[in-house]
Amino acid sequence: MKRISGLSIDELQAFYNEAKQQYSAYREKGVSINMARGKPSAQQLDLSDDLLNLTGAQMGHFAADGSDVRNYGGLCGIPECRALFGEMMGVPADNVIAAGASSLNLMYDFISQCCTHGTGGCDPWIFDENRKFIAIVPGYDRHFAIAEHFGLKMISVPMTPTGPDMDRIEEIVKDPSVKGMFCVPKYSNPDGITYSPETVERIAAMHTAAPDFRVIWDEAYIVHDLYEEKDELANVFTLAEKYGTQNRFFAVSSTSKITFAGAGVSAIAAFGDTLKEIKERLSLQIISYDKINQLRHCRLYHSVADIQAQMEKHAAILRPKFDAVLDILHAELDGLEIASFNSPRGGYFISLNVNTGSAKYVGKLCLECGLTLTGVGATYPYGVDPNDANIRIAPSCPSVEELKTAAHILCAAVKIAACEALLGIKS
Amino acid sequence: MKRISGLSIDELQAFYNEAKQQYSAYREKGVSINMARGKPSAQQLDLSDDLLNLTGAQMGHFAADGSDVRNYGGLCGIPECRALFGEMMGVPADNVIAAGASSLNLMYDFISQCCTHGTGGCDPWIFDENRKFIAIVPGYDRHFAIAEHFGLKMISVPMTPTGPDMDRIEEIVKDPSVKGMFCVPKYSNPDGITYSPETVERIAAMHTAAPDFRVIWDEAYIVHDLYEEKDELANVFTLAEKYGTQNRFFAVSSTSKITFAGAGVSAIAAFGDTLKEIKERLSLQIISYDKINQLRHCRLYHSVADIQAQMEKHAAILRPKFDAVLDILHAELDGLEIASFNSPRGGYFISLNVNTGSAKYVGKLCLECGLTLTGVGATYPYGVDPNDANIRIAPSCPSVEELKTAAHILCAAVKIAACEALLGIKS
Repeated sequence: MKRISGLSIDELQAFYNEAKQQYSAYREKGVSINMARGKPSAQQLDLSDDLLNLTGAQMGHFAADGSDVRNYGGLCGIPECRALFGEMMGVPADNVIAAGASSLNLMYDFISQCCTHGTGGCDPWIFDENRKFIAIVPGYDRHFAIAEHFGLKMISVPMTPTGPDMDRIEEIVKDPSVKGMFCVPKYSNPDGITYSPETVERIAAMHTAAPDFRVIWDEAYIVHDLYEEKDELANVFTLAEKYGTQNRFFAVSSTSKITFAGAGVSAIAAFGDTLKEIKERLSLQIISYDKINQLRHCRLYHSVADIQAQMEKHAAILRPKFDAVLDILHAELDGLEIASFNSPRGGYFISLNVNTGSAKYVGKLCLECGLTLTGVGATYPYGVDPNDANIRIAPSCPSVEELKTAAHILCAAVKIAACEALLGIKS
Repeated sequence: MKRISGLSIDELQAFYNEAKQQYSAYREKGVSINMARGKPSAQQLDLSDDLLNLTGAQMGHFAADGSDVRNYGGLCGIPECRALFGEMMGVPADNVIAAGASSLNLMYDFISQCCTHGTGGCDPWIFDENRKFIAIVPGYDRHFAIAEHFGLKMISVPMTPTGPDMDRIEEIVKDPSVKGMFCVPKYSNPDGITYSPETVERIAAMHTAAPDFRVIWDEAYIVHDLYEEKDELANVFTLAEKYGTQNRFFAVSSTSKITFAGAGVSAIAAFGDTLKEIKERLSLQIISYDKINQLRHCRLYHSVADIQAQMEKHAAILRPKFDAVLDILHAELDGLEIASFNSPRGGYFISLNVNTGSAKYVGKLCLECGLTLTGVGATYPYGVDPNDANIRIAPSCPSVEELKTAAHILCAAVKIAACEALLGIKS
């Protein structure tokens, strides 16, 4: 296809009319497709129904340490669950706390703890009126929402194909009020980018003016490969050991997109004083997490190999969905120079960048056609994309057929917005 | 038996020798009994094994509102679980949030929220250097620990047979820095006292200088009757409605001592702005709680009647344990005027008050004999009982035989301490 900006006015008008016709046809048909959130589909959830069918007799109720999982106790979770997450996250079991269903909850609570009690022997963050956080953009809206909730002013740093722009980050952390950042280091939300080993090492190595600078290392998609060719993430704790910065990292993961979303098991990995502080707080916050659900998971998943086998089943469902969307985006948009998008090897999202100033309009056109996207702007702090350009596509939940329809509508909307901008038509 | 202080020195010495002999016999035998925490016994946990045996086919995976419990969504929990707790706690289902396994976690998070974000439109508590909380004593150590953790200076108010001393509370709340209190209004921990309707009404009616005064209403033992004659607790929200103070109350309950301790379901009941603030915070903290476990519980417990049937089974196990301890306390201590204790109609504890200045020594004697009590002092703020008099007995976990041994050891220790004080023997 030709660059749109290389078309004559007549050609452009014809191209515009065609896009409008395509769009109108879908609008008249009336669709109702939700691509807003990275939710697993029912078909994916079915993969874990063995967890529901495990009887008490099959499961037993004693953990590896002999504790009765039905009773109170065991603040850090059962040993086999800590070991499983340890293997998954590349840390010793002793550095793992196996927790409840939600890793978001763990991250929120850690930030809250830093605000009220400080970390690393420093003052509570809440007493620093200038407290700031680095926001890697585009990023995960729920991370930004936590930072905003706790009054951490966000400084945006753009993603690059190897992770966040480290030159900028190394500059920003010279300010002692900059207290940390959220990272999704593998298959990032929404770009699907995995940080390069060099990026991971620079995050571990960099000097931060704030001794209590903390990195929330959200391993949400740590085993969530889609294709045979997988991304590899360097072990941040191993690198941090080299630089004496293990305290800097608070890592979480969960089985939300391995087993059941919102009814799986989550975990923390941390070292040294950071781990100690978390345990001290947890000893006041909770008696113990749901160890029955931990044991249930460990009866079916004994090792990362078992989890990877499960992830291949997820990939078999998800891959055709990603392919369906990507094929249509390529077929409809390649060469036009009105949009760019990534082709992630894993994770839950495709990140689409349209012409500056047109993403909201594209979102509006889609919505009027019955297609709900992630709220445009949500991938930026305070819900405002300064370029109004990024659109997050979440292909996991709809069917392949729905996704094809959705991708066609989206492409038509992108074309309409680009043409109207060039033709000077006010939307 | 005769008052100890009415004995002659010879009689006292003989009584002392007898107690020491009894104590030494147990010490030589070597026991190992833990009565420290209010944990259910394995036999009680067995009562809920049907929850473990419920298969996916029996349970299904759709809640009453058609939502798939295996997936994200439903911040406030599934409707049938909200309704069940609503019935239990005496509030409409709309005023309930069905949550995860731990009500302690819910209380901690609410205090944390008040500290960082304030409540009722007032300033965050953390910015008030004089922030205070009322501590009803004796009380639950974990409540006190949360208050201490958040720097809420505790002002002790004694329990009376009808609940906390309301005259004192009404005085204390004239200080605008007094921000609230924890209450266990039914079968209080450790006294087993249920607040009288008048006490509940005064808590609802009282004028507090702090508009953001909050009462953490911990309904931990709301259905935990032991005998046919049950205590009745007035509905605090109904009374609060009369006085326009519904916002004042944050109530929680859980199935920890109904089904599985630490793997049950907990819930919040709240009204108006208080409920709104909690929902707003939760929308940032978590995507949804474990709805599978909620549905699992609702498949077996459809109403409070079902729960009461379960509680009768618990009572059948617990009652002989309470009776065994109480019978021995009566037989060994009545009339001596060296100790007093309650005879609760429900809950998990017997509260024993010994002579001023001797509780720690009694605890030490018991420990040296192999009997672990709840840390003496734990029932008071900062772990310090100013009278050194209160001992919490938790009879749920040991067997009846063990409890008999434990009660004999405890009585011997109480007698030894009393005699030594009168005889001027330095311990």
